[in-house]
Amino acid sequence: MINYPFNITNDEKNKSIISYKNRGLSLEKMINDSNKFYRFIDKALIYKKPTPIHVVKTNKENTITEAFFERPSTTDYNGIYKGKYIDFEAKETKSKTSFSLKNIQKNQIEHILRVHEMGGISFLIVYFTSLNKIFIYFAKDLKNFSKENKRNSIPLEEFINNGKEIPLTISPILNYLVFVDEALR
Amino acid sequence: MINYPFNITNDEKNKSIISYKNRGLSLEKMINDSNKFYRFIDKALIYKKPTPIHVVKTNKENTITEAFFERPSTTDYNGIYKGKYIDFEAKETKSKTSFSLKNIQKNQIEHILRVHEMGGISFLIVYFTSLNKIFIYFAKDLKNFSKENKRNSIPLEEFINNGKEIPLTISPILNYLVFVDEALR
Repeated sequence: MINYPFNITNDEKNKSIISYKNRGLSLEKMINDSNKFYRFIDKALIYKKPTPIHVVKTNKENTITEAFFERPSTTDYNGIYKGKYIDFEAKETKSKTSFSLKNIQKNQIEHILRVHEMGGISFLIVYFTSLNKIFIYFAKDLKNFSKENKRNSIPLEEFINNGKEIPLTISPILNYLVFVDEALR
Repeated sequence: MINYPFNITNDEKNKSIISYKNRGLSLEKMINDSNKFYRFIDKALIYKKPTPIHVVKTNKENTITEAFFERPSTTDYNGIYKGKYIDFEAKETKSKTSFSLKNIQKNQIEHILRVHEMGGISFLIVYFTSLNKIFIYFAKDLKNFSKENKRNSIPLEEFINNGKEIPLTISPILNYLVFVDEALR
């Protein structure tokens, strides 16, 4: 039983899933589109942070001619929802059984846990591409996978039992704030 | 009468100012150092967002060989303080009389105002380098300088009357959260 946030028919649901498959949407694209929708309806202001890049050289026209990708010190997304600070990381995995913690930097997990301790809303969104399932997994549960616990991966069952599956909807395509509302209750 | 957030002597104050002058610290460096201090003492998690860069080409070693600077859609700094969302932009000006609004993008001002409307804490920090003065100026006052008001600049008097001058201190060098506390009261 999936609890869809809006009243949509199975037909609409399938259409949405088919079109998203056909369009080959990445999780990043789905989240960016959803955040744009949230901003449009004045529900939340959440943005993806730019990728950190260390610029070495620029030419006369201010075009960058040499630069390197840097490791991010925090997560990809943050912003404001209901006056509160919201912060999360989004990851895809091809695995059908677990989310390997090699896919995420330790300092990113620590950042998510720290935001939670400070009273913010923080979580992971994980897309199991081979299963076509997307889960939201909050910091309170992620604590069991912090560096002290020396775990290598989060099993799929853990997402099923303690996370929430985010169904695809029409507007926005990934209505993850519904689950944030549930968590705030 | 400047209300220093910590009990420091005039001697210490002058030392701090001299060393900061000698080191030629930019506002960005001062804010980054202060944020690092706040994170260290678990007071707040505030980071500078990376500069948005559009990558065109990378080579085999994943070094970027062609890229362009993009316009930021939001502000430079955001994070969490006392569970709340905090968001601000920091700017320097050489002017001794006003802060020209050419120094800041209109969408950045609109973003600051929008965060305020959503219940977040948002402001500008402006450093008048020729006067050696740094001010914090909150969104509630910045409203008068939104695009509808067609103003070209914010006069220095406005910062003096409605903003707060941030004195330099030892740790952190720019203790701007003291003024956020005042505004929250």
